[in-house]
Amino acid sequence: MHENKEENIIVSLPGEFIHRIEQDLNKITSSIPDILSSHYEFLKDEWNYSNAFEFLVGMMVGNCQFSYIQAFDQIYEKMPTGDQTEEIHNMISRRKVDFEQGVSAFLEENNIK
Amino acid sequence: MHENKEENIIVSLPGEFIHRIEQDLNKITSSIPDILSSHYEFLKDEWNYSNAFEFLVGMMVGNCQFSYIQAFDQIYEKMPTGDQTEEIHNMISRRKVDFEQGVSAFLEENNIK
Repeated sequence: MHENKEENIIVSLPGEFIHRIEQDLNKITSSIPDILSSHYEFLKDEWNYSNAFEFLVGMMVGNCQFSYIQAFDQIYEKMPTGDQTEEIHNMISRRKVDFEQGVSAFLEENNIK
Repeated sequence: MHENKEENIIVSLPGEFIHRIEQDLNKITSSIPDILSSHYEFLKDEWNYSNAFEFLVGMMVGNCQFSYIQAFDQIYEKMPTGDQTEEIHNMISRRKVDFEQGVSAFLEENNIK
């Protein structure tokens, strides 16, 4: 008897959800300089980080991670599986250059190094 | 005639919401080493950051920022005002040392510098 091995089934993200995230990533990454402008003075004073670039990239990534996992839970009324969570993280990290360029553009515009 | 000036009215966060955030911040900051352990190898490969400490602190902070703004929206069925958003950010940044200690503990446990 041949059994399907459950662990081999790949449960990927629904296409409509992938599309939604891609659209949001386009919007977020192109808005990074505006998003940061409204908070930067406050963030700088409060966090006093040694490396603004890494902190701000990490912060924007963290906002997206939670946002998309939360969105999945709301739309499908369940949390994403481990594989789906990794796929969400992958979609965000494929935009690494866009996140980094957005933060760099903000820092350059404001003469922050 | 004496008028109340709207801009002077301080609309702060509801006490029950503040309590909820404080409880969550206790939980999150004490779980940082565990949270990062499950993602670190992946994050490191994908992001290839130059400063792990700042990136990871920023990422955890970003997760909390979005999480609490989203929670406010769900509970009260409206987005927090600008002042309330700043208050949420303040509550997170008052835990600066806890975030930093959590990330440092993780990096030390795993011999990452």
